[in-house]
Amino acid sequence: MTPRAIQDDYPDEIAICYGCGRHNPKGLHIKTFWDGKEGVFRFKPAPYHTAFPGVVYGGLIASLIDCHSIGTAIAAAYEAEKRRPGSDPEITYVTGNLNVSYLNPTPMGVELTLRSHVKEMGPRKSVVVCAVYAGDKKCAEGEVTAVRILSRLNAI
Amino acid sequence: MTPRAIQDDYPDEIAICYGCGRHNPKGLHIKTFWDGKEGVFRFKPAPYHTAFPGVVYGGLIASLIDCHSIGTAIAAAYEAEKRRPGSDPEITYVTGNLNVSYLNPTPMGVELTLRSHVKEMGPRKSVVVCAVYAGDKKCAEGEVTAVRILSRLNAI
Repeated sequence: MTPRAIQDDYPDEIAICYGCGRHNPKGLHIKTFWDGKEGVFRFKPAPYHTAFPGVVYGGLIASLIDCHSIGTAIAAAYEAEKRRPGSDPEITYVTGNLNVSYLNPTPMGVELTLRSHVKEMGPRKSVVVCAVYAGDKKCAEGEVTAVRILSRLNAI
Repeated sequence: MTPRAIQDDYPDEIAICYGCGRHNPKGLHIKTFWDGKEGVFRFKPAPYHTAFPGVVYGGLIASLIDCHSIGTAIAAAYEAEKRRPGSDPEITYVTGNLNVSYLNPTPMGVELTLRSHVKEMGPRKSVVVCAVYAGDKKCAEGEVTAVRILSRLNAI
């Protein structure tokens, strides 16, 4: 069975995000695989996702951390409510704050692994931490304050 | 005379950044126009730079803040040393930390204005603050810790 990412259950109307929307043909197609404790996502940057020669662009890393952390917040909230991902009423979050520290240059040409978990979960917001690895080397770490809203369609 | 951005003076070999490299054909081509006090950059997101319908993707906003703030740190450092931008020895910074707060949904279909200034400047790092406006509405604000390095070519 193909593993299912939380983004596969986002409603069609809002699944157009440049970061994680399955209906955005130009997007990054970030996918969060949640095992009940941790969200994992693997991504190999394209050659044009560079900062300077040999190093991945920091804005891409921030984007990966952003959508993967929001996906983690959503997956964890469905689980906390003992509900199937995507079941009504839809659970969604938007990014209130994104804080990324770049610890080491992230090398081009290798698959990156993002590992995230929920540090705090409250009724209105969750705090997700996310680390980016190239092999065993931690290249960046981020913290996302995810704000729960009724539906992303309501934010428009 | 066409105004000159600080990124126009980055060395050719490193001007390949997805965010701000003039030699990256797939990149965002972020440009920082520095007037001695403030860095300004205007950008209209593409239709695919969306988060959900009508709202700009937060990862794009983080990317704009990142490169524009680094450009601001570089421009301010040349000025502090009373040197022409791009003159030898090259001044360059990399991002140590990027912290973005999303204050309001950023609307699609309008030109955004980024305004940045240097909050602190030290021998090893500068702190740059940057706000993103859609018209008069402040949609996001960021703070970037820019770390000075000998040359971005040395970070490889």
